[in-house]
Amino acid sequence: MAYELYYWPSIQGRGEFVRLALEEAGAEYIDVARVHGAGALTALWEAEGVATPPFAPPFLRDGKKLIGQTANILLYLGDRHGLAPKNEAARLWTQQIQLTIADLVVETHDTHHPLSGDLYYGEQKPESLRRAKMFRESRIPRFVEWFESILTRNPKGDSHLVGARLTYADLSLFQIVEGLSYSFPRTMRRELPHAPRVARLRDRIAARPRIRAYLESERRIPFNEDGIFRRYPELDKQR
Amino acid sequence: MAYELYYWPSIQGRGEFVRLALEEAGAEYIDVARVHGAGALTALWEAEGVATPPFAPPFLRDGKKLIGQTANILLYLGDRHGLAPKNEAARLWTQQIQLTIADLVVETHDTHHPLSGDLYYGEQKPESLRRAKMFRESRIPRFVEWFESILTRNPKGDSHLVGARLTYADLSLFQIVEGLSYSFPRTMRRELPHAPRVARLRDRIAARPRIRAYLESERRIPFNEDGIFRRYPELDKQR
Repeated sequence: MAYELYYWPSIQGRGEFVRLALEEAGAEYIDVARVHGAGALTALWEAEGVATPPFAPPFLRDGKKLIGQTANILLYLGDRHGLAPKNEAARLWTQQIQLTIADLVVETHDTHHPLSGDLYYGEQKPESLRRAKMFRESRIPRFVEWFESILTRNPKGDSHLVGARLTYADLSLFQIVEGLSYSFPRTMRRELPHAPRVARLRDRIAARPRIRAYLESERRIPFNEDGIFRRYPELDKQR
Repeated sequence: MAYELYYWPSIQGRGEFVRLALEEAGAEYIDVARVHGAGALTALWEAEGVATPPFAPPFLRDGKKLIGQTANILLYLGDRHGLAPKNEAARLWTQQIQLTIADLVVETHDTHHPLSGDLYYGEQKPESLRRAKMFRESRIPRFVEWFESILTRNPKGDSHLVGARLTYADLSLFQIVEGLSYSFPRTMRRELPHAPRVARLRDRIAARPRIRAYLESERRIPFNEDGIFRRYPELDKQR
């Protein structure tokens, strides 16, 4: 039976980390809200009969299982599709990297929503300018340096984040580099040259046949200013 | 061999979720920075020979394993100490709840640091006032309502978040209710009466023999204004 992915139909957002894993796995899945509309998402999300209602999208249905929280979905898919190591320590390390990427996703989102997700960007723009400045100058460099360092230290070589094979964490690193490069092109042009292994991993993921086919398809929603990664040039201005 | 927990020695912070699990498990552990000083934490954190360096504390050493990210540490400890179900779907649901609590922890932290962790609260106070207002009025109610709803819907009864037995998620829910009640006492006095199951779970956890002994010991660091849960009365004022 095909997986059912429940996520907003018009943005990449957090759902994209799941989409990339499903695409790389060659798994059959229905992107429910893209096929049946956002109403199909909210219908399940708000259904009173669900014993394990997710707090927020994305969530994945696999038969009777309903799984929420992006990193948790990837933990599940990783085991099923060979996108995570079987060794316990390596499997936890993969998830640890994923959760660190999840932290970076929150921080990225909050550059345009530093006060509340219930207010528009225009209602919190001065705060966004201050938060984005700190994010560009202190947080992006720190995260990128960390990704570079763990690639450098991988005993199995710097082609993957964990061991010698692809994991869902590699796919997610690709996505966050893509997203940050869309949102903060000037900052990333400054930072990525200091992280050549991160840049090469990004290129290598983009060139994988299934990922490339996906990126070129209509299934890949373009980045836009409703998602997590938004291009507001004023937030990427250097000083 | 005793676990080694690496976390800041003067705050509950994220480390507290791990401490509570270790205490409930009756596990032997060394709270490294409390015994040997914060230098012992940074020494391992920054050691260049570590193949899997954590991005931030807390992290846990178990022999040769080094595990970071709070929810990931709990995933590990849960399996080892009977603090998580063995059934796969229930185990993932436990982790999903934990990750949702982790999201709430970030949002709580950001009420006093809406712009940056590198600035003092005093440098972002107007922004904190606005963020905290949204947090009190929209986010706390939404999270508390979700916790109440998942307790209500638990097919095994409303005594635990998952199934009929204690999990690390129950301990974490206790901690976040404690923390929010410290930071936002007025808001929580308004919200908790609408969530009687959450309030009862909190009381039940506090009364567990090992948890009670821990809370009464010197090992439990009091809440303070350096941690995640801070009592700044101006952030809890109703309008």
